[in-house]
Amino acid sequence: MNQPPAPAEQLRVVIVADNHARPTGHAQPKSANIRWNHGKVTPEQRTEHNGHPGCVVWLTGLSGSGKSTVAIELEREMFNLGRHACILDGDNLRHGLCSDLGFSQGDRKENIRRAGEVARLFADAGLICITAFISPYRSDRELARRTAPPGRFLEIYINAPVEVCEQRDPKGLYAKARRGEIKEFTGISAPYETPFEPELELRTDRLGVGECVSAILARLSLTR
Amino acid sequence: MNQPPAPAEQLRVVIVADNHARPTGHAQPKSANIRWNHGKVTPEQRTEHNGHPGCVVWLTGLSGSGKSTVAIELEREMFNLGRHACILDGDNLRHGLCSDLGFSQGDRKENIRRAGEVARLFADAGLICITAFISPYRSDRELARRTAPPGRFLEIYINAPVEVCEQRDPKGLYAKARRGEIKEFTGISAPYETPFEPELELRTDRLGVGECVSAILARLSLTR
Repeated sequence: MNQPPAPAEQLRVVIVADNHARPTGHAQPKSANIRWNHGKVTPEQRTEHNGHPGCVVWLTGLSGSGKSTVAIELEREMFNLGRHACILDGDNLRHGLCSDLGFSQGDRKENIRRAGEVARLFADAGLICITAFISPYRSDRELARRTAPPGRFLEIYINAPVEVCEQRDPKGLYAKARRGEIKEFTGISAPYETPFEPELELRTDRLGVGECVSAILARLSLTR
Repeated sequence: MNQPPAPAEQLRVVIVADNHARPTGHAQPKSANIRWNHGKVTPEQRTEHNGHPGCVVWLTGLSGSGKSTVAIELEREMFNLGRHACILDGDNLRHGLCSDLGFSQGDRKENIRRAGEVARLFADAGLICITAFISPYRSDRELARRTAPPGRFLEIYINAPVEVCEQRDPKGLYAKARRGEIKEFTGISAPYETPFEPELELRTDRLGVGECVSAILARLSLTR
């Protein structure tokens, strides 16, 4: 330690900003006894340290459209470029944070709400958070956008026609849905609301995964 | 791009490991149609890139014991040392991911479950995730430990006698609890189960915040 120990009294003082107002994009907590505790590492310091700001790269599209494949290659390429990136994968989250949720419309909504909140936490920590969720409802995606730091949310529509996705059917889920073994399956028996104005749209029936990754990197002004 | 575009067919192949078995510490999802999607950036690569492995530094203790204060100073010090750290703060999470939860025993349990899951996501992404939650129940903290990557969870008991915490009362909550305006307040009208074998115990009525930070850094084999 290069500094003298702080007196124990300092533990009483937590105030590091003018007030404990919550940052934008956050809800009012259930209890009025909850304040916001500001850290002392600023977003600007994190950006300078990492060489890029934190942000959310939100991949949306049908099952089988290629979201996870693109996310995995994008993360690897960003890592190779020295960027700080991570993936929030829809299937993986359902093994952990969202293991209590099913596929009803209410549960899907809560699933995406939590994903948006965690993506924001990652962006606040300075990471490029790549998310891979079907996220079929526009209102849910809009909530994720509002939850993210302002201007730091990119909605990327991973678009392949449902016929192509059904032909790929990497997990055999379309076949199960056609046999009625899966209810409320997006694209077959539940709606997918296409993005109105995504920051980027990628037709994965026409583009290779490398081309998709390059397009996203270009949109983020990251080059390789 | 230094490589030719991959053919679109590659999008069908997501398999990057022998199977889609979930890593340890994860629950069985509700649906049997959910697999685990492995990324291509290994934990070892992240560790080499960051200079340290990801882990969870779990601060537990009474309200007013100094968890947030220690977390904030620890994060800043780690940042100054070039480490990749972030804070998951109990109060802050209740503005976002856990804004739907109250303070019943069931809601507290769910609050800590989610915190443990998010902490693991951060550790998997290579960060040192410092958490600041009262987390009064041993079983909940044990769940957080089991959720974290094996061997990468440090339970740190931020310990000040309840009389000291009540005297500090930085948010006026003990006064409210004494007046009966807050029910189930930890240390007054709800239990705090002290850790049996924490990796570290810090008496914040005797130590300054700088001393606490130094002790945690030493425990992590990080020096300043």
